[in-house]
Amino acid sequence: MSDKWIQQPIKLLDEQAAESARLRQAQLTKPAGSLGRLEKLAIALAAMQGTEQPQMRKAWVSVFAADHGLAQAGVSAFPAEVTAQMVHNFLNGGAAIAVLAKQQQMAFEVVDVGVNAEFTPQPGLVIAKVAKGTASSLTGTAMTDSQCLAALEVGKQAADRAFQAGVDCFIGGEMGIGNTAAASLLIAKLTGSDLAPLVGAGTGLDAIGLAHKRQVLAQVMAQHQALDARDPLAVLACLGGFEIAALAGAYLRCAQLGLPVLVDGVITTAAALVAEQLAPGAKHGWLFSHRSVEPAHQACFDALQVQPLLQLDLRLGEGSGAAIAWPLLQQACWLHNQMATFAEAGVAG
Amino acid sequence: MSDKWIQQPIKLLDEQAAESARLRQAQLTKPAGSLGRLEKLAIALAAMQGTEQPQMRKAWVSVFAADHGLAQAGVSAFPAEVTAQMVHNFLNGGAAIAVLAKQQQMAFEVVDVGVNAEFTPQPGLVIAKVAKGTASSLTGTAMTDSQCLAALEVGKQAADRAFQAGVDCFIGGEMGIGNTAAASLLIAKLTGSDLAPLVGAGTGLDAIGLAHKRQVLAQVMAQHQALDARDPLAVLACLGGFEIAALAGAYLRCAQLGLPVLVDGVITTAAALVAEQLAPGAKHGWLFSHRSVEPAHQACFDALQVQPLLQLDLRLGEGSGAAIAWPLLQQACWLHNQMATFAEAGVAG
Repeated sequence: MSDKWIQQPIKLLDEQAAESARLRQAQLTKPAGSLGRLEKLAIALAAMQGTEQPQMRKAWVSVFAADHGLAQAGVSAFPAEVTAQMVHNFLNGGAAIAVLAKQQQMAFEVVDVGVNAEFTPQPGLVIAKVAKGTASSLTGTAMTDSQCLAALEVGKQAADRAFQAGVDCFIGGEMGIGNTAAASLLIAKLTGSDLAPLVGAGTGLDAIGLAHKRQVLAQVMAQHQALDARDPLAVLACLGGFEIAALAGAYLRCAQLGLPVLVDGVITTAAALVAEQLAPGAKHGWLFSHRSVEPAHQACFDALQVQPLLQLDLRLGEGSGAAIAWPLLQQACWLHNQMATFAEAGVAG
Repeated sequence: MSDKWIQQPIKLLDEQAAESARLRQAQLTKPAGSLGRLEKLAIALAAMQGTEQPQMRKAWVSVFAADHGLAQAGVSAFPAEVTAQMVHNFLNGGAAIAVLAKQQQMAFEVVDVGVNAEFTPQPGLVIAKVAKGTASSLTGTAMTDSQCLAALEVGKQAADRAFQAGVDCFIGGEMGIGNTAAASLLIAKLTGSDLAPLVGAGTGLDAIGLAHKRQVLAQVMAQHQALDARDPLAVLACLGGFEIAALAGAYLRCAQLGLPVLVDGVITTAAALVAEQLAPGAKHGWLFSHRSVEPAHQACFDALQVQPLLQLDLRLGEGSGAAIAWPLLQQACWLHNQMATFAEAGVAG
């Protein structure tokens, strides 16, 4: 396996198309600017797709699942077995992201990038296990360098599949008991922020559980004080998870291919932060769906200097928040492409 | 025409159905509360529809159009002729709400409740003109009492049509050059707030235009100082518009019928405030789609003690913000009805 792909250039935004889209917006039968964020969305999508009239017909969802060595330290309200149980729930259509993907006609796949269980091969499941869960960052690095590169590659391949399928938007989801812990660690290290205020209740820790999670994560940070925050791959390997690395690889690849991305919650945004540090400017090809209640999410948005679309007190993950925001992208394109201009409608502008 | 219908009782929420929906939410395969506002939406819709598993299959849009005498005082960035021009644009499918309604398979009609123009009868247009625009509230009341009751009745009939068509949700839209002025006046009077901070740029006034609008509206308020803020019909007749009265009538009727409402921007929310004051508690049958950039909108939410779903810097009206929020209602129901329970999925809860 070669990791040379990571160095490939990202596809630049088409500023000409953005300008044409901006001019088109100004001619549509509405007060200038009155569709707010939806106007900006249409212009951003025009720049990403390189056309005055962008289209959002079909979205693709890859949910990356993996286990975390750190989960054994009791940083989650749910037992680690839930990761594998939820993979079955995704495949059987009972999980939130599976319901949203089906109802919204999205392409949907689950990628086992490191679950601590064996799955029977079946349609909709990609088995690309790097290992049966990461090691614990309490006692060493979560991944070896080569494991980290392998997980990035798994994400790259998902982005390549989506691109080859001709979809208009890539949504990455994740499942991994313990992964808000990993995301908080990554965000604290990469942004140079204090860890404690970035640690949240995840799937639903009570006050005692949250205090314990903070204590464990503080130990992890102390253990890896020498880690160089300017080396995103080293930070990812040390503190991350297989699904987070896969997401970072997928987002980076989408930016190379020019396939628009809709980012979900705090874990996917942590992966986006890693990918942006690997390839500065890649973020311009990504849209951010919502602000979750996990406190590290806002710190991550601040570091990326981006603004999410929704704020609905979501904290589920799986890609569900991105799937909830997806209609906004479609609506932005419908309005942009199908509204009449002042001249066409004979309306005084 | 009788106005006795206004006194009919509103349909009470089904608290039993809400409780069943709450219990169902607790069993779904996700951390409790992790779908945030979408969980609350599903429970609220269960209470409105009187069933544990609410359905949002089809929405109905009535756009009420009317002209305002106050527009002659130069309170809008657009000329009054645009009201009639936009009616044609709605019917021809070129306006934002028309695009959103078509793409989202909504039932769609335009109701001329008082436009200063004659329209040829055609499918999708309901001609129910009360007068060719209101009088100016600068020099008297905008409507006579009987005109105000007639406009309320036009809205009631739209709600009745929607109910008879068997839709799951009513969306009201509006078009009327000058109607943010009327909405600000209504909200200031009904909430007892200072007028000046509630006056916004509407369709896009510059600083000079906004100062002029503030001055004109202050004159209107001074003119009607004796108006009793506790008499919502008198306030509506004096300061409102035909489309605002029709919206108030439609929302009130929906609350009587138990047909869920999705409210749009500042003008429709002003109508909702009137209707809530006419029938306290009616608001529990309504959902609020978004917070617009018009400053009076938040004051109106505060008075109603409700919280909108979206904040996307919208300020178009027409019902467009409600149509943009509509997928959230559908998603909330899909998730609520189709997600697996912990027991069904064999996931540790």
